Amino acid sequence: MFKTIEWTNEGVRMIDQTRLPAEEVYVTCKDAAEVANAIKRMVIRGAPAIGVAAAMGAALAVSRSSAPDMERLRQDFEAGAQCISQTRPTAVNLFWAIQRMRAEFDRSMAADGSDEDRIRRAKERLVAEARQVLEEDIAANRAIGRHGAALLGSSATVLTHCNAGALATGGYGTALGVIRAAVGAGKKLRVFADETRPFLQGARLTAWELASDGVPVTLITDSMAGHFMKQGALDAAIVGADRIAANGDVANKIGTYSVAVLARENRVPFYVAAPLSTVDLSLASGDQIPIEERSPEEVTHLAGVSIAPGNVEARHPAFDVTPHRYVTAIITERGVARAPYTESLRALTQ
Amino acid sequence: MFKTIEWTNEGVRMIDQTRLPAEEVYVTCKDAAEVANAIKRMVIRGAPAIGVAAAMGAALAVSRSSAPDMERLRQDFEAGAQCISQTRPTAVNLFWAIQRMRAEFDRSMAADGSDEDRIRRAKERLVAEARQVLEEDIAANRAIGRHGAALLGSSATVLTHCNAGALATGGYGTALGVIRAAVGAGKKLRVFADETRPFLQGARLTAWELASDGVPVTLITDSMAGHFMKQGALDAAIVGADRIAANGDVANKIGTYSVAVLARENRVPFYVAAPLSTVDLSLASGDQIPIEERSPEEVTHLAGVSIAPGNVEARHPAFDVTPHRYVTAIITERGVARAPYTESLRALTQ
Repeated sequence: MFKTIEWTNEGVRMIDQTRLPAEEVYVTCKDAAEVANAIKRMVIRGAPAIGVAAAMGAALAVSRSSAPDMERLRQDFEAGAQCISQTRPTAVNLFWAIQRMRAEFDRSMAADGSDEDRIRRAKERLVAEARQVLEEDIAANRAIGRHGAALLGSSATVLTHCNAGALATGGYGTALGVIRAAVGAGKKLRVFADETRPFLQGARLTAWELASDGVPVTLITDSMAGHFMKQGALDAAIVGADRIAANGDVANKIGTYSVAVLARENRVPFYVAAPLSTVDLSLASGDQIPIEERSPEEVTHLAGVSIAPGNVEARHPAFDVTPHRYVTAIITERGVARAPYTESLRALTQ
Repeated sequence: MFKTIEWTNEGVRMIDQTRLPAEEVYVTCKDAAEVANAIKRMVIRGAPAIGVAAAMGAALAVSRSSAPDMERLRQDFEAGAQCISQTRPTAVNLFWAIQRMRAEFDRSMAADGSDEDRIRRAKERLVAEARQVLEEDIAANRAIGRHGAALLGSSATVLTHCNAGALATGGYGTALGVIRAAVGAGKKLRVFADETRPFLQGARLTAWELASDGVPVTLITDSMAGHFMKQGALDAAIVGADRIAANGDVANKIGTYSVAVLARENRVPFYVAAPLSTVDLSLASGDQIPIEERSPEEVTHLAGVSIAPGNVEARHPAFDVTPHRYVTAIITERGVARAPYTESLRALTQ
């Protein structure tokens, strides 16, 4: 079984998701800037996985520092954190992870002892905290899986969009964690995977993950999901999330909003599976979630091949926001939230 | 200006749409089987263009025949018609064109005179009829354009899906004919073009056509249309059709149904532009329209490059059916039909 991301003595090791499924290649990032670059290039992607990478990048910024005192170690931490924070704006897990690492650093800063002792302890603590972020994420996904599996019938065909699998997280997956848990509980599932243009996370990553696990998967283009819902071929839709506002509005991969609208129109339950680290109670609604606009070249080109006239203008919002009224339930590690989300999400995070 | 299809002394000449926009290459089909193959391979596509090609293919079956008598000429006609009829099931224009050519043949068959005279006249008449189908299609599109342009504001951003342009018709286009007529009438239009996976008619053909005409076009993935509607960026959606049932249900390129649902959800008018040759009053509803299932390889591969794990199952319905309740209006060459379509479409076809 592949590992999405892990801490090694050589640095932060990740499977290169830009090269899947053709090649299973790993890269090792040796400092925070390399981690930032990996996030930006989508070597690693998926909100929870980005959170883990950010935590490990912050840990690298400290553990690889040669700062002679705590104040300069803090500067190195903040430089690394800054670099990582500027990579991708939508997934809140990145900022959540940086903040969690900063809190750990602050505890080391406030500790008694010589600078030498505090530096050694800070390095140990931040590496341990980053590894903890990874472990907790996997544990959260397994809990999400258990809660979510109960929502699926004993035989069901489930649509998913993008990749909210082991590759999008520390491991196991959120939306695909629900699938895995349901299959593990003996349910007979088939997954319809939206290919998820432009980056093809569905075709490249979800299809690969599920095929590797032996879960029956059918690949479709994003434009086919509505058709199959109308035909009655789909029993549920499950997606991940990059950020969930206090009112339950969900930012997720571009196209998720369309899936949600089509699901409601066809009375197909639409579930969002995400750890509570994805919930941003500081934002009242999804209107306030920053939406990353990526390079139009990712739309006009595919695998390096131009698929459009050379001079054509293109747009590439990488995410959209699904208003909470389309969301049947939000599956978290602490249980299933339902409308009104302002209350249910707050209750789960307390 | 390119010609989608034309009758020449050498045969039926078409621009090869599988090679656009990279190369502007023409192919000449010398018999009905070559025309059938061109339709099947999507060298030519788009319901009205398929109708023209079918008519010209049937004309070739007769004009290139060396049958010594009318009965054997009829056999050659029927063999060609049969070959062409088995290419693509959804666009009714193909069957409409064959039927029209058969009626012309029947007139020649019933005429007085020697076999030699009737054969010569049948050959002339069928070629003339096929050229007439082309001319009428272009004229219909110009009329559709005039009727449709009146529905658009003086400044509007319009979404289109697939290619319902000059390339999909004898010339000028249906949905893009409306755009062209509106621009010609001095309206300021911008077009958002869905790329239209898997065959990328939007990215390859619509973007190319509009850019060639100097109409501002923005390319998006199919999954982005809903997002931009929700943002209020789109004032209308216009698509073509492959077959329209008596009740106004519309079969069109896969993904059209999703666009229609998202348009209604966001109060964006959803227009269908099509000649009356696309209306099939013999079918009470869209449930009866045969939907072509094409090769899954067109989903798992792009420009010859595999974009998914090698063994993954894929589905490829090439069309979907949009129930009439999502259709704001159907724009035909004889005017604009609105609900109830069972009455308005019948009135226009009488």
